[in-house]
Amino acid sequence: MPHPLNPALAATFPPPVMEARRWLDGVEFTADRPLINVSQAAPVDPPPEALRQAIAEAALNDPQAHLYGPVLGMPELRAELAHQWSLAYGGEIAAQQVAITQGCNQAFCATLATLAGPGDEVILPTPWYFNHKMWLDMAGVQTVPLAPGAGLLPDPEEAAAKITGKTRAIVLVSPNNPGGAEYPAELLRAFADLAKRHKLALIVDETYRDFDSRSGAPHDLFSDPDWPRYFIHLYSFSKAYRLTGHRVGAIVAGETRLAEVEKFLDTVAICPSQLGQMAALWGMLHLSQWVAGERAEILRRRAAMEAAFADLEGWKMLGCGAYFAYVTHPDPRPSPDFAQALVREAGVLMLPGTMFMPQGANGAAQQMRIAFANVDTDGIAALRDRLAGLARG
Amino acid sequence: MPHPLNPALAATFPPPVMEARRWLDGVEFTADRPLINVSQAAPVDPPPEALRQAIAEAALNDPQAHLYGPVLGMPELRAELAHQWSLAYGGEIAAQQVAITQGCNQAFCATLATLAGPGDEVILPTPWYFNHKMWLDMAGVQTVPLAPGAGLLPDPEEAAAKITGKTRAIVLVSPNNPGGAEYPAELLRAFADLAKRHKLALIVDETYRDFDSRSGAPHDLFSDPDWPRYFIHLYSFSKAYRLTGHRVGAIVAGETRLAEVEKFLDTVAICPSQLGQMAALWGMLHLSQWVAGERAEILRRRAAMEAAFADLEGWKMLGCGAYFAYVTHPDPRPSPDFAQALVREAGVLMLPGTMFMPQGANGAAQQMRIAFANVDTDGIAALRDRLAGLARG
Repeated sequence: MPHPLNPALAATFPPPVMEARRWLDGVEFTADRPLINVSQAAPVDPPPEALRQAIAEAALNDPQAHLYGPVLGMPELRAELAHQWSLAYGGEIAAQQVAITQGCNQAFCATLATLAGPGDEVILPTPWYFNHKMWLDMAGVQTVPLAPGAGLLPDPEEAAAKITGKTRAIVLVSPNNPGGAEYPAELLRAFADLAKRHKLALIVDETYRDFDSRSGAPHDLFSDPDWPRYFIHLYSFSKAYRLTGHRVGAIVAGETRLAEVEKFLDTVAICPSQLGQMAALWGMLHLSQWVAGERAEILRRRAAMEAAFADLEGWKMLGCGAYFAYVTHPDPRPSPDFAQALVREAGVLMLPGTMFMPQGANGAAQQMRIAFANVDTDGIAALRDRLAGLARG
Repeated sequence: MPHPLNPALAATFPPPVMEARRWLDGVEFTADRPLINVSQAAPVDPPPEALRQAIAEAALNDPQAHLYGPVLGMPELRAELAHQWSLAYGGEIAAQQVAITQGCNQAFCATLATLAGPGDEVILPTPWYFNHKMWLDMAGVQTVPLAPGAGLLPDPEEAAAKITGKTRAIVLVSPNNPGGAEYPAELLRAFADLAKRHKLALIVDETYRDFDSRSGAPHDLFSDPDWPRYFIHLYSFSKAYRLTGHRVGAIVAGETRLAEVEKFLDTVAICPSQLGQMAALWGMLHLSQWVAGERAEILRRRAAMEAAFADLEGWKMLGCGAYFAYVTHPDPRPSPDFAQALVREAGVLMLPGTMFMPQGANGAAQQMRIAFANVDTDGIAALRDRLAGLARG
């Protein structure tokens, strides 16, 4: 342990994805039986060539690609997101209500920093996205977990019962990481009403919105003219346009909130990558058809996952959607041990449910997250065979 | 004010550079008399063409440019920085002791988060770099200021007298922003000894190291085999290679400290821009001669600034080096009012000393920071003429 050490950092768990990567050390995989890596939600291919060309062109010929930009992001990108979101969600969103961040994780951290400090409470459904929990821990904010209901949906009544004088926000992720659930519009509305009534913020992380299986708007929260007072939407450009390595995300929130966000981003970021923002804008302007194809492919993989697990003995699917399936496994070992064993015994890397749940939480030792989006339908068939073989082995 | 609002954010001042930019609103500048903007330390030109080509080439042909990388940065870049720094500073630095961040501001935030929490104290010489103060405020950490001594150098004895049971770190910037002072090696050694003796961390932000007027190593802190226990070095790739818009910085620290830094960076960044890291590595491998030319040009501008202010009536230079001159002005108005008036009266944008000092601090109302690096020697002559004209006007 280094010294001095902030106790809040010491109490924060280490990055799960990096920890899981270390389980691969010393394990050999063959061309016959390569590693099936379903640990991280990340495209494995680069963006389409036309977008790569647009990035290269900007790098060569646009000086702005290399210089500081405004703290809250490139005005054209803020305006385009406001425009497209206003159409998609049926509400009024102004460019001044959009901030661009160095990825959606940073969008969450910046937002939370404006809302809650040490001793405050934030309500977070389980299973949760681990980086949300890590940031709350580092900030000294108390996480108040909600139990997963049927279909891994959280219950607004449980949330209502857990609101105290210290509660500052409710955080939802839809489509959900790690659970895959697509929250019904009425459920999001119920949480929004709760937040509005109790003067809390409702944060909805919609990183996976572009892969929602439903058509039309996933919710009507932007249609309330009062939304900037309580609703905060988070987004990532990483998945739709395969820009994970560029780190571009967004916050949609009221302008007074963004003035506070600006303080955080000025200090932590100065500005987002200019080239990444140019790539995101190019994607928004030219890739809607291409993204539709990507979505169709993810939905095919999702269907393949559901079919594969329907008769996989001992395994049960609790949720499946966006990039993720959340399942229970039949192995007697607790999920962290089983996950490590899977690397050696099946050549498969997935994350144990314990990484998404409070310590000692009911069920976590039987649960696993499978980030299937990276794996095509043949790969999903191979994954199923390896897990089935394990049961027989 | 938005609600809910974290009181620590509310108490943090807004980004000075963005505030100063708003002073330009509604003011017209002519081709005859364009704005002279000496408010921000930022190159105004893009990187050299060969580097832009390398970035474009990677964007087109290297899939890794667009995918997630390791949280602590690209292994090749960490190794190259370790190698070059070991040679430059005369010490042993391993790749595992280097982390890459989304810019040097983030390097500071990540480092500080591992060191200090609410109620802890950090010692910061004045005039300070405003983003350091903003982060300490947001984190609830108490800033303990040191008064500027002769040549704007801080006094280790004053620091020693101000150490309490709550002190966690001393933060220095050399060459200094905003003061321009190049801290003597013996002064840095004295602070390092103090930190070591009291089991504190010594953070030295060396963003401007590539423009130091002295030859050889600026300090010998890495030569103590014990350095990882107490010394933390911060660096930025933004200035040397004109990569401000890519956001790439670095932390050099002990490996156990970097394990804590990794938690912060995983949550706030996931990874730095991959293309930015590739650009930084290309720069390190190919641009040392070019950077030497850039340094020579900055030193010419520095000499021009010193000459220009030597006989500028009523103005006094307190410090000059790296990208900055820190001066006192002769105007009866306090520096924030004078700075705003300068935009209209002289077509010059510079930042008032109050942005770099505790509220009500002695002298701040007479002080200004001039980020002269963006302005060539003709521009510096024009700046001098406009300020001289103002005095006569």
